[in-house]
Amino acid sequence: MPITTTDQKKRVLSGMRPTGKLHLGNYMGALANWVRLQHEYECYFFIADWHALTTDYADPSRIKQNTLDVALDWLAAGLDPERCTIFIQSHVPQHAELHLLFSMLTPLGWLERVPTYKEQMENLTTKDLTTYGFLGYPLLQSADILLYQADYVPVGQDQVAHVELTREVARRFNSMYKSSILSEPESLLTPTPKLPGTDGRKMSKSYGNTIGLSESPMAVATKIHRMSTNGQRMTPSDPGDPDLCPVGDLHKIFSSAEVIAQTQEGCRKASLPCEWCKIEAGHSVVAITDPFHEKRQRYEARIDETWEMLREQSRKAAARAEETMLPVRAAMGITHELGAVRRYFGLTAQEREKLYHLEDCEDWLAVASDQRTIFLRDYWVNNLVSRDARLSQEANRVFTTLEREIEEPYLTAKKKRVLVTAAVEEPDGWHFRIPARSYEIWTLLCWKRPEDDLYDFVLPQNVYAQAFAQAKRLLRKNEQIHLRVRQHGDKWQLQFVDLNRPEVSNGANIAPEVEFIDITEYLRNYRPLL
Amino acid sequence: MPITTTDQKKRVLSGMRPTGKLHLGNYMGALANWVRLQHEYECYFFIADWHALTTDYADPSRIKQNTLDVALDWLAAGLDPERCTIFIQSHVPQHAELHLLFSMLTPLGWLERVPTYKEQMENLTTKDLTTYGFLGYPLLQSADILLYQADYVPVGQDQVAHVELTREVARRFNSMYKSSILSEPESLLTPTPKLPGTDGRKMSKSYGNTIGLSESPMAVATKIHRMSTNGQRMTPSDPGDPDLCPVGDLHKIFSSAEVIAQTQEGCRKASLPCEWCKIEAGHSVVAITDPFHEKRQRYEARIDETWEMLREQSRKAAARAEETMLPVRAAMGITHELGAVRRYFGLTAQEREKLYHLEDCEDWLAVASDQRTIFLRDYWVNNLVSRDARLSQEANRVFTTLEREIEEPYLTAKKKRVLVTAAVEEPDGWHFRIPARSYEIWTLLCWKRPEDDLYDFVLPQNVYAQAFAQAKRLLRKNEQIHLRVRQHGDKWQLQFVDLNRPEVSNGANIAPEVEFIDITEYLRNYRPLL
Repeated sequence: MPITTTDQKKRVLSGMRPTGKLHLGNYMGALANWVRLQHEYECYFFIADWHALTTDYADPSRIKQNTLDVALDWLAAGLDPERCTIFIQSHVPQHAELHLLFSMLTPLGWLERVPTYKEQMENLTTKDLTTYGFLGYPLLQSADILLYQADYVPVGQDQVAHVELTREVARRFNSMYKSSILSEPESLLTPTPKLPGTDGRKMSKSYGNTIGLSESPMAVATKIHRMSTNGQRMTPSDPGDPDLCPVGDLHKIFSSAEVIAQTQEGCRKASLPCEWCKIEAGHSVVAITDPFHEKRQRYEARIDETWEMLREQSRKAAARAEETMLPVRAAMGITHELGAVRRYFGLTAQEREKLYHLEDCEDWLAVASDQRTIFLRDYWVNNLVSRDARLSQEANRVFTTLEREIEEPYLTAKKKRVLVTAAVEEPDGWHFRIPARSYEIWTLLCWKRPEDDLYDFVLPQNVYAQAFAQAKRLLRKNEQIHLRVRQHGDKWQLQFVDLNRPEVSNGANIAPEVEFIDITEYLRNYRPLL
Repeated sequence: MPITTTDQKKRVLSGMRPTGKLHLGNYMGALANWVRLQHEYECYFFIADWHALTTDYADPSRIKQNTLDVALDWLAAGLDPERCTIFIQSHVPQHAELHLLFSMLTPLGWLERVPTYKEQMENLTTKDLTTYGFLGYPLLQSADILLYQADYVPVGQDQVAHVELTREVARRFNSMYKSSILSEPESLLTPTPKLPGTDGRKMSKSYGNTIGLSESPMAVATKIHRMSTNGQRMTPSDPGDPDLCPVGDLHKIFSSAEVIAQTQEGCRKASLPCEWCKIEAGHSVVAITDPFHEKRQRYEARIDETWEMLREQSRKAAARAEETMLPVRAAMGITHELGAVRRYFGLTAQEREKLYHLEDCEDWLAVASDQRTIFLRDYWVNNLVSRDARLSQEANRVFTTLEREIEEPYLTAKKKRVLVTAAVEEPDGWHFRIPARSYEIWTLLCWKRPEDDLYDFVLPQNVYAQAFAQAKRLLRKNEQIHLRVRQHGDKWQLQFVDLNRPEVSNGANIAPEVEFIDITEYLRNYRPLL
């Protein structure tokens, strides 16, 4: 049953390219935020090793080790496989599959216009980026995100355009395949404090000025001890300005209010040597990194288990991804099940005849009538419709009520809207109440008791158009059309019950004769569906 | 052992888009040829449902049924799942994965220049083909082909450019990753007789003039009975020219020499009414199609089994594809096994120390020395090299001899060439004979008996460069350098044995002192590999 509850956690997805061991800048810019998010959301974090190839294809020798380094630092910094799913992109082949499927419906121009595309082409001049894969990498990101139906994507400002592309792809897919399979994600901008590297510039691997997230306390302290003070306090008696000093910036991010006050005063008054200030900054940073360092050592020492855990997590991610792929494949005419195509082939006339007897379905009589309607409708669509008719339905549509689901039309190959609905025999025939909307075909399923035979009528609009128009004029807003089907001798007849209502016959309008429409010829006649 | 035999069957791969039931034109143009090829080659034939999306993405509703229709006609026409592998592209996710990996290294310009690209853009004006996927579909074909390491690809003339692109992709991959993983396929052009449709034009679905491959005999005969005679013989007494008549063309392809002679004469002399000639043509064609018709009925009647068979065949194809993906992933830094990265992490000093004892490897002493060398070399690379050094080898290289394999260098992360070779102790030390080629690093493995300790020396070029140059001058062509390693007190020494040869000391050159090079510091010193 495609009834979903709304008390599920929202989903978050984000990834990092495997650039090797992480540094404090990566932590403050993204990872620290992820560690928080895992407590509130259903989180998926992945190492984008395929993405690494878009720029590093000519020398991929470090990718694998870098992948593990990133994973270990994630675990060390507190991503908890019990609380979130941590996986390796290339271990989930659905990313490549969805990327390929998306490629079919994504205009080239969308990718050529992604702002980062030309920017990176211009900046990374040492690498040849005029490849098919580099052009397509934002689309691979769209697949990454939509595969998990993420609600939020924590990103930096430069990636917002990619999330926007993802939303466009989702919209195009949904509109093209008349579905609501893909949900549009939103960017979750991470506020990032300015984190100085050891030379005072922004901390970045390319500047070689990083402090590693899981470096030993000694290494961290040494690096901070050697940090630039931006040329201030050439002699210990010169006062300095902590707001102009990278070490001062470190304090602001990592130290307690008390230490910040002390060191700022000591700097301005030249009462505290820079060495002491740096030692204090070292303590503050090591208080963060030391547990990471220790935890990483533990994961490294059990590298086989860590790897097995990552594989297990990747399998978990793949299972979630497959949930999305099933309706996506169906919408695009690609499924791994025979399903509805089975109808198109096989079955002898005799086998087919048997299917109109519902003895085996008697337990459906015990369920509520709208639920039974759905069972019967599915049974009819999957087993009885002629093999030449091909009915489709919007895949994976989430219905809030059974009633809504019953009203949802099937579509024929020619995009005609078909309402399929069912009733069990009452003393005076089968009664149907159906929305007064425009369906081009009504299919009425009549379950005859006690023989348990199914009689199905496929009625094209012209059969009932006149009576329908008349009935609709008399209906109040949102009221349903009331139909009756009855067997009369060897004929089958359809009646619009509402036309007979007392308030109508008593009013200004004169009630029309209670007309019966002969529908005998539409019994098991699937021609209208072709 | 990567030693392969050469008596394997050559591989053939080809595919068709799922356009629905096949017609005689499809049969004569491709399928009939495939049926022959399955007896000579290891054949893979696939239904390219993902390719269908490159043009039909906006309405994929027929793809699945068409896929089955094609499969059933293949089976009906004689493709035999016992003799070839028949599969559905989308059931083998490796196609999407390899396509993605290839996208990384394929220049956009290669795809933009594929002749069919602009051609189709201009011809298929009713569809919007300016998509990322349409640009990339020849690359998807390259993945299709290279995934199975096909030797031959039966194609029509219009597809030759795609096979050429495939060869380029394979060459670029091999040269970029210094491998011989991908083999270049060759086109196998299918000679196609001119087959007229029922209206005399080329038989083609888009003209609506086809004779279905598995239509009932009655339907086929009726279609042929109504065929155009190209306006000839308006009255039965007019003579005609069978060379100008589509029915005459059918006879030439499908009838016996006798029937051809009879009908041609009857036409030219106006002695045979067109009706009779058409009935004869009908007989000839039905003789081909009737068995197909019957066989198809049988497969249709067991559609679930047929589908399960296709899935099973697809699994078989996927297993073959995975064989290619393993070395491809490894070459691109993407593997699903921890493998060599394990070395980089973990292992306590104590655990490491233990690995230098070869007690457990004593059975290697029983094998030939070159085989033992390989065992030892692999053992050293996989277990002993420092966790920071990352040696790689050309993946999947096929060696014709063990000797060639031993000479093959490993590469460090910085692309230095490392020769790794092993010897067992002889009375005066360990003797090595190595090619007088330029390796930047020699790694000499000494197995000390009876303690079974392994001593490993990683020698950078500067240690031996001078002696090497000297020795090389004295060597005959293709002669190997002869080295000896010996333990001398607590020192380890390397000697170039060749410098000491009698013919040299007796000749004009005065033999140099037998120099020993101290290599003690390189014992278990993996720095040169970083």
